[in-house]
Amino acid sequence: MRETNSANPTLVEVVRGDLVESRHAGAIAVADPQGRLLLAFGDVERPVFPRSAIKAMQAIPLVESGAADAFGLGDAELAVACASHSGEPVHIEAVQSLLAKAGLDESYLGCGAHWPVSETAMRALIRAGERPRAIHNNCSGKHAGMLAASVHLGLDPRGYERPEHPLQIMIVGIISESCAVALAPSRMGIDGCSVPTWALPLAALARGFARLGTGEGLPAERARAATRLLEACFAAPALVAGERRFDTLVMGKLAPAVFVKGGAEGVHCAALPGLGLGIAAKADDGAKRGAERALAETIAALLPEVRPALADQLDGEILNWRGTSVGRIAASAELQAALAALGSPARILARSASKG
Amino acid sequence: MRETNSANPTLVEVVRGDLVESRHAGAIAVADPQGRLLLAFGDVERPVFPRSAIKAMQAIPLVESGAADAFGLGDAELAVACASHSGEPVHIEAVQSLLAKAGLDESYLGCGAHWPVSETAMRALIRAGERPRAIHNNCSGKHAGMLAASVHLGLDPRGYERPEHPLQIMIVGIISESCAVALAPSRMGIDGCSVPTWALPLAALARGFARLGTGEGLPAERARAATRLLEACFAAPALVAGERRFDTLVMGKLAPAVFVKGGAEGVHCAALPGLGLGIAAKADDGAKRGAERALAETIAALLPEVRPALADQLDGEILNWRGTSVGRIAASAELQAALAALGSPARILARSASKG
Repeated sequence: MRETNSANPTLVEVVRGDLVESRHAGAIAVADPQGRLLLAFGDVERPVFPRSAIKAMQAIPLVESGAADAFGLGDAELAVACASHSGEPVHIEAVQSLLAKAGLDESYLGCGAHWPVSETAMRALIRAGERPRAIHNNCSGKHAGMLAASVHLGLDPRGYERPEHPLQIMIVGIISESCAVALAPSRMGIDGCSVPTWALPLAALARGFARLGTGEGLPAERARAATRLLEACFAAPALVAGERRFDTLVMGKLAPAVFVKGGAEGVHCAALPGLGLGIAAKADDGAKRGAERALAETIAALLPEVRPALADQLDGEILNWRGTSVGRIAASAELQAALAALGSPARILARSASKG
Repeated sequence: MRETNSANPTLVEVVRGDLVESRHAGAIAVADPQGRLLLAFGDVERPVFPRSAIKAMQAIPLVESGAADAFGLGDAELAVACASHSGEPVHIEAVQSLLAKAGLDESYLGCGAHWPVSETAMRALIRAGERPRAIHNNCSGKHAGMLAASVHLGLDPRGYERPEHPLQIMIVGIISESCAVALAPSRMGIDGCSVPTWALPLAALARGFARLGTGEGLPAERARAATRLLEACFAAPALVAGERRFDTLVMGKLAPAVFVKGGAEGVHCAALPGLGLGIAAKADDGAKRGAERALAETIAALLPEVRPALADQLDGEILNWRGTSVGRIAASAELQAALAALGSPARILARSASKG
């Protein structure tokens, strides 16, 4: 009594006392820019919606079109265009600045409103007697970037979020070419922030991140755009997520060796430019805690020297409301064994090259 | 590359566009008071921590000891003792009243503090410039009930939450006898609110809920206590969870045909007193949305006449931040098929009796 689709292995286990209380099944792929798969843990060919994990790809037109230069955008504005931000004051200022430089304002944002992800920012808004606006939406930087690209390209900024808008069609081409995968209309969904999201296999997504991190396999202008966006995120990791959040913490410690970006429903991707590899993970159940731990374990396997810096992301203590340690969350023995089988980074890269 | 423990079937699917975006594997058991299993979907023998799903069992000493009568507790106080409440004013008042009648105050609560689950209540607290206290913890009613029982039994209320306290030992006996299962010390964990939680199979948990709902198989005083607690929850479903929450909505519509109680990490149980059946579900990954949908589908299969009332709990539309419908969440075809195979309630009960 099982469907084929539920057969993924366990990525991460949540332990309470001496028992596994919960477990996150899923899949994770590691690929190089040529699409050679170094790791295929679970079903890495099943299409998954990348959601916000590919915001850096969605931001490429902002740079490649010349908009970023024309508007004089700095690291903070480019990083927030790639961000799922927490709605902290620093994020709101960067989005407002990006919009203003493009001659627009908050009223153009089509992402819908939600309370800031940051509890501190949310409480400040409540104490001020305010309601959340679209600019507080974690995706407002991406939307501001799409708006600025549209303005620079001479496109009508109204409707920029719709699948038929030329900017979204341009983005489909970028994702498709970067990941070397066809994006069928039947695989389109609408994201939480109202832009299209296109399902594609983790194997293709990992390849796309390998290209994003290295520029290999991308047209020259696109490679430069990708590099500039990643450098902005490395320079301003606080802009990409927020206080105490995974992407900000990991890039804060590991930039420029590691670019990481998570999306809703348990998708998390990384680019390791030095190794020339990309990683894409999905927790089948959509749990962020599952995808984050699996990604951290995979990064630590590929870059053993960063393991100490990732300690908090690898083996998490679960504290109860009184602060008592009641359990832990960590990668499954299965995933650890699959990663150990990869061997040293030198061996991994040699194997990748030999497959060419 | 799979561990035996991850082989449960899919309970619930989350669909975006035309694709399954996420899925929740898990297990669900339906049993009668004699422990006969009417449904065993997935591995119902694997021990799971019941967490807050068994708060009504943990509240039995409060009634069985005579404390509820001695302190003159009403429905609101008994219901909140069985609750994972949202910290709304009505919940805080009920917990304060329960504590006051036992001659105690908030300072005795050992559950730790967290912001109210209710966003409205949380915002009110923030606007008032206050911080959350232990009484806002969703478990404060259970703790107040344990304190009142301890006082009435002449036990030291300090330390009531520790595994070695006589009240907790009494509760272990109640769970063990109700579910007809031995609770090994190796299966003890510490809950988020600092009391012990004991792992047991879903099959045993379902049996325990069948007994809780019917009194069958329980000592007479315990059966009366269980009935009184369930009647309190049926009379005051708003006290058991809160506005817009599953347990309050379901009991608000279906009491006294259905008692439901959820716990952390994707556990959800029900008693159907009229049918004499208990249900216990666990989403392997700990997702509330998985356990709730699976439980609702199972209730609707056992009580077909309530299906229209459960429409919102069965097939949920997923709206994005602009209110656009972007997907849905519903029981898997596998679970629906397993439930359809059960047949009519009359046939289910006949089969249960024939197994006797």
